[in-house]
Amino acid sequence: MRVEIWSDIACPWCYVGKARFEKALATFPHRDQVEVVHRSFELDPGRAKDDVQPVITMLSRKYGLSEEQARAGEDNLGAQAAAEGLAYRTRGRDHGNTFDLHRLLHLAKEHGRQDELVQILYRANFAEERSLFTEGDDRLVELAVEAGLDADAVRAVLADPAAYADEVRADEREAAELGANGVPFFVLDRRYGVSGAQPAEVFAQALTQAWGERSPLTLLDQGDADACGPDGCAVPQH
Amino acid sequence: MRVEIWSDIACPWCYVGKARFEKALATFPHRDQVEVVHRSFELDPGRAKDDVQPVITMLSRKYGLSEEQARAGEDNLGAQAAAEGLAYRTRGRDHGNTFDLHRLLHLAKEHGRQDELVQILYRANFAEERSLFTEGDDRLVELAVEAGLDADAVRAVLADPAAYADEVRADEREAAELGANGVPFFVLDRRYGVSGAQPAEVFAQALTQAWGERSPLTLLDQGDADACGPDGCAVPQH
Repeated sequence: MRVEIWSDIACPWCYVGKARFEKALATFPHRDQVEVVHRSFELDPGRAKDDVQPVITMLSRKYGLSEEQARAGEDNLGAQAAAEGLAYRTRGRDHGNTFDLHRLLHLAKEHGRQDELVQILYRANFAEERSLFTEGDDRLVELAVEAGLDADAVRAVLADPAAYADEVRADEREAAELGANGVPFFVLDRRYGVSGAQPAEVFAQALTQAWGERSPLTLLDQGDADACGPDGCAVPQH
Repeated sequence: MRVEIWSDIACPWCYVGKARFEKALATFPHRDQVEVVHRSFELDPGRAKDDVQPVITMLSRKYGLSEEQARAGEDNLGAQAAAEGLAYRTRGRDHGNTFDLHRLLHLAKEHGRQDELVQILYRANFAEERSLFTEGDDRLVELAVEAGLDADAVRAVLADPAAYADEVRADEREAAELGANGVPFFVLDRRYGVSGAQPAEVFAQALTQAWGERSPLTLLDQGDADACGPDGCAVPQH
């Protein structure tokens, strides 16, 4: 079974939702047969790369909240994160464009290091004092190397804005096709969707349901198959 | 869309079928959104690692063919391969246990090099004069490095019979669950199956059908979703 998780590193509910999903997965009896893939979704794709703002300022400007409302929202999110055992700095975080982060996550996918990098980027964005957005490429190289990637390969991707850009766009196009207009968005075997940071019980139920309802395949063209099996290989018929 | 291909490196129809599938994929309009994954299937899992035989001898002993029949089968397969532009040595090939090859293919998957290694192993088994089975680990290291893998990582996997063994077994268990009793076996989005090295037209039709019938997701728990979207992040409700 495959679970795809559309998310953005700048999305607090993605950070919390991933922890809740993983809590459910940890007790799922068939967890060894579940493959988790992270998919790209930018909440703020129009933001210029050099336009970095404090999160509170961004929230009040972009969504018309008072600074007090924005702070209350961050406090609420911090409490939800803490309930999942996640560190969350409710003050002093920065917000910026996440396109380069998604490009690096696709590089990491090719090297089997995607989940490691997702975790490290979440931690860097939500829990660490250093900004993920104002220290330039050096900071990203440092984090990607921590995830097990090669520093030169990371630098090469960051230096070429086209690298993995198509992959990010393809993920975002698929999210739209699947009906996701917010994240996190969980898709189980392309059959079931779960929207948002639902409680772990909802993910547990979704895993059980999707597992139990795996449908038998529809076999196309069941004519003479040129195949090899335990009794040998078919002799060509055509 | 995801296409999973169960196959064995020692399976001539897998070699031919992959080429036919790729011919269909090359002209499929949505090919950029098709991900191809190779899955493990051993045709001869009971063969001891050091039990290497000429293919003709294996065919006649294992399947009760006369040597003449075995040679005719290889000639037929060679002709089918040639029709797809594939080199195929109909005489002098060896047959052996492929478990280590499958373990390396899982290593390659983790490094984004699986398709490269599949192609190189097929070529080594079907087209090259050197045996894939009698030269020991050095030969496998050489081929895996050609596919872009790190020599030390390859040696470490070959030295540890448990490395990726569970992944190979899991693929084989899934094949059985999906009803595959021979290879190649193609599975499109876990909805449609195509058994055998069908003509490219069958694969083209399967791709079109699976693409067109991608079902909308069933959304589980559509209650209040703690999610972030273009208009901001939900305020915690629970």
